[in-house]
Amino acid sequence: MAPSKREASPRLQEAMEDCRDKIEKTISSLLPQTDLPEMPLYDAMRYAALGGGKRLRPFMVMEGARVFGVDPARARRVAAAAEFIHCFSLVHDDLPAMDDSDLRRGKPSLHKAYDEATAILAGDALMALAFEILADPETHEDPRVRVELMSNLAGAVGGLCGGQMLDIIGEKQEFDIGTISRLQRLKTGRLIAFCCEAGAILGKANPAHRQSLRNYAHDLGLAFQVTDDLLDAEGSATQMGKPTGQDAKKSTFVSAMGIEQARMRAEMLVEQSIMHLRTFDEGRVDLLKDLSRYVLERRV
Amino acid sequence: MAPSKREASPRLQEAMEDCRDKIEKTISSLLPQTDLPEMPLYDAMRYAALGGGKRLRPFMVMEGARVFGVDPARARRVAAAAEFIHCFSLVHDDLPAMDDSDLRRGKPSLHKAYDEATAILAGDALMALAFEILADPETHEDPRVRVELMSNLAGAVGGLCGGQMLDIIGEKQEFDIGTISRLQRLKTGRLIAFCCEAGAILGKANPAHRQSLRNYAHDLGLAFQVTDDLLDAEGSATQMGKPTGQDAKKSTFVSAMGIEQARMRAEMLVEQSIMHLRTFDEGRVDLLKDLSRYVLERRV
Repeated sequence: MAPSKREASPRLQEAMEDCRDKIEKTISSLLPQTDLPEMPLYDAMRYAALGGGKRLRPFMVMEGARVFGVDPARARRVAAAAEFIHCFSLVHDDLPAMDDSDLRRGKPSLHKAYDEATAILAGDALMALAFEILADPETHEDPRVRVELMSNLAGAVGGLCGGQMLDIIGEKQEFDIGTISRLQRLKTGRLIAFCCEAGAILGKANPAHRQSLRNYAHDLGLAFQVTDDLLDAEGSATQMGKPTGQDAKKSTFVSAMGIEQARMRAEMLVEQSIMHLRTFDEGRVDLLKDLSRYVLERRV
Repeated sequence: MAPSKREASPRLQEAMEDCRDKIEKTISSLLPQTDLPEMPLYDAMRYAALGGGKRLRPFMVMEGARVFGVDPARARRVAAAAEFIHCFSLVHDDLPAMDDSDLRRGKPSLHKAYDEATAILAGDALMALAFEILADPETHEDPRVRVELMSNLAGAVGGLCGGQMLDIIGEKQEFDIGTISRLQRLKTGRLIAFCCEAGAILGKANPAHRQSLRNYAHDLGLAFQVTDDLLDAEGSATQMGKPTGQDAKKSTFVSAMGIEQARMRAEMLVEQSIMHLRTFDEGRVDLLKDLSRYVLERRV
């Protein structure tokens, strides 16, 4: 019934590339572009937000929105806001005081291309911009919808910060699997949950449908993180576009349960995530299912 | 008619202290406090947000809210959110990559008391928390009001970032008075405008009344900055609780127009700000008027 991995890939690939191109345009149009004296800040924001990444989170927003027949123009604004939050967190995480990464998406990280002060400010401004976009009536005419999106996104950002704090603490002490799960839920899971659920919020879906998307996001997010840990344990800098192996000192799913157990866990999570979508028409959730399977495929 | 400076002070002093005590409690109750493993982040947020500062911005919110008879419990939530944004900006501005300040409000700045990574994250988390608080129905039952508060606050944060960027650029090049005004409007003015206008938004005031508060905030904010520059030019580290004289290398109102011109400008702005309040009952805006006059009094 379900298409095999090999069949799924080209369809998903095409959809993701199409989404990426459109989102790139939306992101560019939403970034400030002026010749005001503070322009270096806007240049840095563009550098951080444009021209890189698979745009997985925007894809989740767009596909979640498609489930509920949401106007794609609106969904793209939410997708861009989520990506701005993702970019903000990457920029701050890369700083010397944090993960000290010189490379991001195959090019110098923002504080390398500019400087630390500009990188801190650009991250801050990207976060603020995300909220500004969601607050705008163009995102949805109903203020209830906008406020709910903003509330969820603010919670996700709080999660990102808490998760990164745990990540730093985890460099000095070993975590049990419960704390590692918490770390990942905060650091990756909550923003992915926002992305998957945003379409349901925009489409004013019923609580059961929203819960299904939330459950899907929960398992997908965890699967994503486990395979990320696997990729990092096995990967090389060339293939990932960022330095790898540096998580070796950190507590990860792989360090806690070993490579084989981690791989089995990821497979189970992917299966589970797909199960949560059975309540929807196959034609509406085919790509979300493909996306789940893709998480397993992105092995080095 | 208007009370003299000497008469105004005790009344204002008392009201500000009363407000400060109440806001301190609100801020404390809104900060996360758990024994979760990411607790160092929450401790750092408390360190940054509690136990210091005159809470001028919260006072503006509370007094603006009083003009329109807004429930103080709601106004206090908005006041706390504004103060969280103010604290976020102080924490990030103090970082070594930015202003490199070791002291803040008479105690070690956050990255000195903790470390740079924690300070960056705590700043980020304080910003996100401000939006979470405004999104909550406890702030106002009407989602239109909440979304408008969030939209205005997001714009103010974007301004803070742009203003700080200009501040950094201004260390290396001299600005004309127009650019200095822009810098200050972005860095201080927009958040002060948010604070003064928030009560009008919460109270669903008519556009003319909102505009009056906005005009008041504009002139007050500028007066505030000019006197800040004056204080910095004349001040000492003991009296300000932070290193002074360090703005000497930066473009300021004082560097652009000289001490005497700057002082005259501040006086004119204060007079103007008070004029904007004449449309309201004296009993509702007496303390806002006192606050304007106080800006001139806080000379070293």
